[in-house]
Amino acid sequence: MKFSFSSAIACVMLASSTTHAFTPSTPSFRVSNHISTASNFEIAQRTKFSLNAQSAEELEVLYKRRPRPEYIPNHIPDPDYVRIFDTTLRDGEQSPGATLTSNEKLEIARMLAKLGVDIIEAGFPIASPDDFAAVKQIADVVGNEVFEDGYVPVICGLSRANEKDIARAWDAVKGAKLPRVHTFIATSKIHMETKLNKTPDQVVEIAVNAVKYAKSLGCNDIEFSPEDAGRSDPEFLYRILSAVIEAGATTLNIPDTTGWNMPWEFGGLIEQLRANVTGADKVVFSTHCQNDLGLATANSLAGALNGARQLECTINGIGERAGNASLEEVCMALALKGDEQFKGGPGTGKLYTGINPVHISPTSKMVSEYTGMMCQPHKAIVGANAFKHESGIHQDGMIKNKSTYEIMTPESIGLMRGDQESGAGIVLGKHSGRNAVGTRLRELGYDLEPEKLNAVFARFKEVAEKKKGGLEDEDLEALVTDQAGLTNELWKVTGLQVSTGMSGIPTATVTMCGPDGVERYVAATGTGPVDAVYKAIDQIIGVSVKLEDYSMKSVTEGIEALASTRVVLSPVVGGPNDNNPLISKERKFTGSGSDNDIVTASARAYTSAINKLLKWTMRRQPEEDNGSKAEAVAVEGSEPTVVGASA
Amino acid sequence: MKFSFSSAIACVMLASSTTHAFTPSTPSFRVSNHISTASNFEIAQRTKFSLNAQSAEELEVLYKRRPRPEYIPNHIPDPDYVRIFDTTLRDGEQSPGATLTSNEKLEIARMLAKLGVDIIEAGFPIASPDDFAAVKQIADVVGNEVFEDGYVPVICGLSRANEKDIARAWDAVKGAKLPRVHTFIATSKIHMETKLNKTPDQVVEIAVNAVKYAKSLGCNDIEFSPEDAGRSDPEFLYRILSAVIEAGATTLNIPDTTGWNMPWEFGGLIEQLRANVTGADKVVFSTHCQNDLGLATANSLAGALNGARQLECTINGIGERAGNASLEEVCMALALKGDEQFKGGPGTGKLYTGINPVHISPTSKMVSEYTGMMCQPHKAIVGANAFKHESGIHQDGMIKNKSTYEIMTPESIGLMRGDQESGAGIVLGKHSGRNAVGTRLRELGYDLEPEKLNAVFARFKEVAEKKKGGLEDEDLEALVTDQAGLTNELWKVTGLQVSTGMSGIPTATVTMCGPDGVERYVAATGTGPVDAVYKAIDQIIGVSVKLEDYSMKSVTEGIEALASTRVVLSPVVGGPNDNNPLISKERKFTGSGSDNDIVTASARAYTSAINKLLKWTMRRQPEEDNGSKAEAVAVEGSEPTVVGASA
Repeated sequence: MKFSFSSAIACVMLASSTTHAFTPSTPSFRVSNHISTASNFEIAQRTKFSLNAQSAEELEVLYKRRPRPEYIPNHIPDPDYVRIFDTTLRDGEQSPGATLTSNEKLEIARMLAKLGVDIIEAGFPIASPDDFAAVKQIADVVGNEVFEDGYVPVICGLSRANEKDIARAWDAVKGAKLPRVHTFIATSKIHMETKLNKTPDQVVEIAVNAVKYAKSLGCNDIEFSPEDAGRSDPEFLYRILSAVIEAGATTLNIPDTTGWNMPWEFGGLIEQLRANVTGADKVVFSTHCQNDLGLATANSLAGALNGARQLECTINGIGERAGNASLEEVCMALALKGDEQFKGGPGTGKLYTGINPVHISPTSKMVSEYTGMMCQPHKAIVGANAFKHESGIHQDGMIKNKSTYEIMTPESIGLMRGDQESGAGIVLGKHSGRNAVGTRLRELGYDLEPEKLNAVFARFKEVAEKKKGGLEDEDLEALVTDQAGLTNELWKVTGLQVSTGMSGIPTATVTMCGPDGVERYVAATGTGPVDAVYKAIDQIIGVSVKLEDYSMKSVTEGIEALASTRVVLSPVVGGPNDNNPLISKERKFTGSGSDNDIVTASARAYTSAINKLLKWTMRRQPEEDNGSKAEAVAVEGSEPTVVGASA
Repeated sequence: MKFSFSSAIACVMLASSTTHAFTPSTPSFRVSNHISTASNFEIAQRTKFSLNAQSAEELEVLYKRRPRPEYIPNHIPDPDYVRIFDTTLRDGEQSPGATLTSNEKLEIARMLAKLGVDIIEAGFPIASPDDFAAVKQIADVVGNEVFEDGYVPVICGLSRANEKDIARAWDAVKGAKLPRVHTFIATSKIHMETKLNKTPDQVVEIAVNAVKYAKSLGCNDIEFSPEDAGRSDPEFLYRILSAVIEAGATTLNIPDTTGWNMPWEFGGLIEQLRANVTGADKVVFSTHCQNDLGLATANSLAGALNGARQLECTINGIGERAGNASLEEVCMALALKGDEQFKGGPGTGKLYTGINPVHISPTSKMVSEYTGMMCQPHKAIVGANAFKHESGIHQDGMIKNKSTYEIMTPESIGLMRGDQESGAGIVLGKHSGRNAVGTRLRELGYDLEPEKLNAVFARFKEVAEKKKGGLEDEDLEALVTDQAGLTNELWKVTGLQVSTGMSGIPTATVTMCGPDGVERYVAATGTGPVDAVYKAIDQIIGVSVKLEDYSMKSVTEGIEALASTRVVLSPVVGGPNDNNPLISKERKFTGSGSDNDIVTASARAYTSAINKLLKWTMRRQPEEDNGSKAEAVAVEGSEPTVVGASA
């Protein structure tokens, strides 16, 4: 896999990035950190923070900068600093259908660096050669892009507690300036007995050996997680955690793997661990909270209240099942309340992070587009409605004073208010040049290579020609996503005509150009126009896939808006994945396409997903093969039924 | 508005409903309710609950029934019982675009009763005659359907703290067996000064007079909310809450209106209020937490930990901005952990609710379909991925023992596992009869009147004819939603033909039948096929609307799946809404349509939304008019451009 990194773009990125922390002001009062112990006076004072701010703008002024402390794996020089560990590319990518390409992963990793996350968990290198390559690329590129103030993200790779996994993870990350290996083993009774089939003594031995092995490879930044800690026996946790510290672990991550804990329960666990683990003062405690009861954010914050100084989270809260703690929720809660509500752990309790919240909205949009994991309209902070006010009473209040119903401004998370109200956003039209499009995309967080910018600009001109009102930010983002799936595409739709309606049989004629440069066309019928188009594409490419999900939305308001389609496909059973137990046999592939015409958008999305599936199949080999035979492997299905060839 | 209520259907509902509470078992150990005070032993014991359950089935067995205590407005005979107050139909309907018809509201209210919520906040009666009528209908119908065990939901109407609002709310709810009026006024400095322009003394006077006025009308169940309590001066809260108790308030609801509080902060506020408000022991304390920082569920639970015994929430957590506490998250947390983690308030601390969780999934789906507020795939408990396991490691664990990664089973919330895995769900095909369709719909929670069932069945036959694999539950639900918008429809699409593609101009010919029974057709072009169809519909009906949002998804997996389209429209500025400050000038209308053909589905959805808009406009008059002039008011726009008339 070739990746051309442009140093010119890196310079632009460096110049435009701000990496200092935004933290709330330091009001001159103290409040209690425990439930029910605050005096009336303290509660009265507590409300001052908001009352003092008479406008949303004023609330923002309350932020001020604090420099990010020097990075030392097992120790944070400022005990008030909370590290943000982002696992969007690892746990987030485990969401069904969220499969990302290596290029998408790299773009997201760069956005995470701009956002200022301390640690990027880039993937699970043993899972496949593709996963390994993606982690290595991020380590080699993003892990070496040092910002002006010296900040560079730690790049972390996940591994089970065995030598093969750990060696593979270390190989993937070691090119980064700050590499970290994260190893884990389950410690709850149910997991040890029924999943691992090991005794507690065996589990301790495996964990200690894993940490020692990572250290022996030259890794001095080692994170250890006792999986399902939220349901583990605390006494056993004291024992295994003390042992791994002794063996060289520098961060102890406490996962509530099944989302089982109440906030006060999880906070209590962190405090007990800090009090009872031998060597606890020599490591950084971390939280990793799943969201099965909707409490992941609250549990992470309760961890910080009780002394955890690394919080693991994902953009938009994506992840297995109900997902993880949302980075944007955790970080904005700390930005707004870190100064007054977190006095429980070490330090002064005026907590802050290195996150620059102005990059939250663009990062959220990018992750949502690339993973296909959409946020519900009422998602906190980044949902489409998060800053919308519907009832007359609320609108009346907002007109009189924005902070009646807003505790943060949309601008503070990088969402320009103009984006939401008609007309005030930046709109590019058919007369806009490539430079204007490129500049706006950079402002939105997309640093495109010249070749890709050209492709996006060509699509921009096509679409702008048809769309009267011009293209808004969301339209541009849709075109970037549309193009993201088309780099080095194997198959391309070059022609399409469809006839459908309430009577008659929906019929589509599709023309496609294949990897051999030959154009083929076929006509097919279906239950609807998209079904007809997809059947035609299946016939031309000769694949057998299952459509798991299909969705479409208008990108912006208005009847002529660009439509963005997303499909999720899975290969039919019997594919080459069956051999690797690490990868789900239901590996899914997402494709996106945008066009003024929903049928064309649907065809583009489907083709993009099939291209991803074919490429992944081509790159995929068993571990033993060591990456030498990169041939095309056909997915099962009939040979292409080419009805006609036009080139 | 005519509503035909079938008593036969009511009987079916009574017979099939279970209203006893499911609560966790009573383990023989005590744990602390405060952060950081639990001993090691206690933490060790705490984990037993899950460790004892060796399977997900066993965890479920841990539920057991406790009867719902008698309803007394200001007092709960069992101090461990937590009332669930559902505000989906009031706060939830304030979500942008979530406008519901009266029939949809009635269906949702019935589902909420089956679910077992203690109080249904049915709407804001002063807002419009339509809102009044919907609340009155729910009070008269659902508020009188007494279940076998004597349970009947309280029906509540919201009002500002003035006589006109309160009288209107009381008129709407008084037909219920258990009517409640909920009145509120803001108490935070910023709201009083900049929104109300009142002094604290004036605000106390207004609140007291409001409660006294409600009581004078004969209402003995009065809820009072100090709006923005989360940012109010606690001393002022003590004063105003003591005064309203004296005046006759029976429930004191504490809203964190802007989602500003941390869980321990909000819990502390509840405890302080219970300790410092005069007469606190004579009322029920309630929480109402917004979700701006993603903490609404945690804050509600922290309220319960500190003695709140009513929790306000909405299905799927919908509501203004980032929404409210999710009923399903709050109730499942109490079901799983209520017995061991909530020892802080009155009683033994073994908390339980009257919610029957098996109705959670059907209720969630209905609310999602009717409001158009979709849940993200990683929404806790009710998201599409909430019970899906993607990574190989997790799948391996699930095969060995389901409770390795699941703390509750999908079946416990009414989601049959077969729904998710291919083939195991119930599938109806083209040979299925009306009885089979009706029975399955009843099982899914849809009790349709015979006329509506006939309409749904006719659509079922049409669709089943084309869809090879048969129709799954989600397909049936989509058809119900599709029909929901078509009752007494004004305009109907009767014919449609479309031609589109990558070259050429997308062209649509649409035939529609209007309220006068005359068929008209028109041809139009557009940037895409849907745009062309919508332009044709606009011309035929002669409306001027703005398309705010358009989305589509396949209802089930597979390439021939039914597509469900949803559109959100708003009337153009200058409509009749401008006169009423209570209603947003941006009132939006949602329409749904389902078909095998995405263009037909899109046309159905658009027509459904326009029909809703036209009907709402017809019913809408200023308060002064007293509901007498129910004429059609044309929305601005050109006259219908009827190119041809075929009948």
